[in-house]
Amino acid sequence: MAKIGVVLSGCGFLDGSEIHESVFTLLHIAELGHEAVCMAPNIDQTQVINYLTKEEMKEKRNVLTEAARITRGKIKDIKTVRADDLDALIFPGGFGAAKNLSTFAAKGAGCEVNPDVSALAKAIHAQGKPIGVICISPAVLAKIFEGSHLQLTIGNEASVAKQIELLGQQHVVCDVTDVCLDSKHKIVSTPAYMYDKPIHQVAAGVAKLVKSVAEFIEKSKQTMPVKP
Amino acid sequence: MAKIGVVLSGCGFLDGSEIHESVFTLLHIAELGHEAVCMAPNIDQTQVINYLTKEEMKEKRNVLTEAARITRGKIKDIKTVRADDLDALIFPGGFGAAKNLSTFAAKGAGCEVNPDVSALAKAIHAQGKPIGVICISPAVLAKIFEGSHLQLTIGNEASVAKQIELLGQQHVVCDVTDVCLDSKHKIVSTPAYMYDKPIHQVAAGVAKLVKSVAEFIEKSKQTMPVKP
Repeated sequence: MAKIGVVLSGCGFLDGSEIHESVFTLLHIAELGHEAVCMAPNIDQTQVINYLTKEEMKEKRNVLTEAARITRGKIKDIKTVRADDLDALIFPGGFGAAKNLSTFAAKGAGCEVNPDVSALAKAIHAQGKPIGVICISPAVLAKIFEGSHLQLTIGNEASVAKQIELLGQQHVVCDVTDVCLDSKHKIVSTPAYMYDKPIHQVAAGVAKLVKSVAEFIEKSKQTMPVKP
Repeated sequence: MAKIGVVLSGCGFLDGSEIHESVFTLLHIAELGHEAVCMAPNIDQTQVINYLTKEEMKEKRNVLTEAARITRGKIKDIKTVRADDLDALIFPGGFGAAKNLSTFAAKGAGCEVNPDVSALAKAIHAQGKPIGVICISPAVLAKIFEGSHLQLTIGNEASVAKQIELLGQQHVVCDVTDVCLDSKHKIVSTPAYMYDKPIHQVAAGVAKLVKSVAEFIEKSKQTMPVKP
């Protein structure tokens, strides 16, 4: 059984984690017999949105506390999570990735990434472990690994794809039910709700992403040098 | 394509709709080619819970606005929904069903049910259309149809089962991946997170519930008298 970190950013696609993408990530990790280790930064949300009016509400909410709604309370402060304790990392999407985990929504390629998020992703990658990114989250990864020629998809949204290319990565157009597989860097992405497609197609894309991440883990273990 | 009403009660299992159960309901409705018509009452939540500490927070949130997080903003005030426009009704679980749709959490069999929720459920049932209830929601249905000898399950939780029997219904013990099918009354229930079981087993139970509701709809249409 592998331990797969799931990085959340709140609860809801307009100001936090996209709920469907997050739940499908947890579902497919469990279906493959692995364990999800959920985490989020313990910081205030950049915004709180009213999902009926789409307008900003004058209140404060905490990213970790709200993300805990999706995980039924079982979640860690990302600051306390070590790469050594995980086999992989997956980032569901939602504007939270671009507003709370990074400032990509406001600043595009010139954004900053939360230092704990960035440090964990870099450590996981340095240990040769795979990373899965869903929806808008590839933009966060593009910034963390700026200039690394990663193959990433955010579907076919030209303006976001351009920012990803400005960050020195290669954008690949990809269908909602499919994944973009960068085998060299062990990075998998799927566009999910970057398209306006039905929920079951989003679920199919996320299922394929989790399966691809699990296959990278399996392969790494097979090729791991046997200690004397 | 059938229109299946989904009655939500907030966003999160401690003070609103259980998120996983709600998302799996929406997923399986879409997978069967049907349309989900999401709704919630436009009222304040009874409580707002901090999901890390499990303590009550001193703030107000609206049931409809928070439920809209799960549905990506596409949701109706239940007051505006007519039974004529639906083919079935499904209630995901979560404490919201027992705190916001009714006062079951505080008062058990002596609870009250939100009048718009009660009126819609009664109208759907009177039209011979099926109702699906997940997790703790069978308790709400038990109150709405008090004394109707419905067969319902909330898993194997003795204290809640007793309240359901006090309301003149029959409680049936049922596994998390299975459903309790009351064919006479066209009511389907599944225990979901009434058990402390893994997410993919909850998903399997909800899938079976949605499929059973869809089969009731299909059968009703086949036996519908042809108008001259």
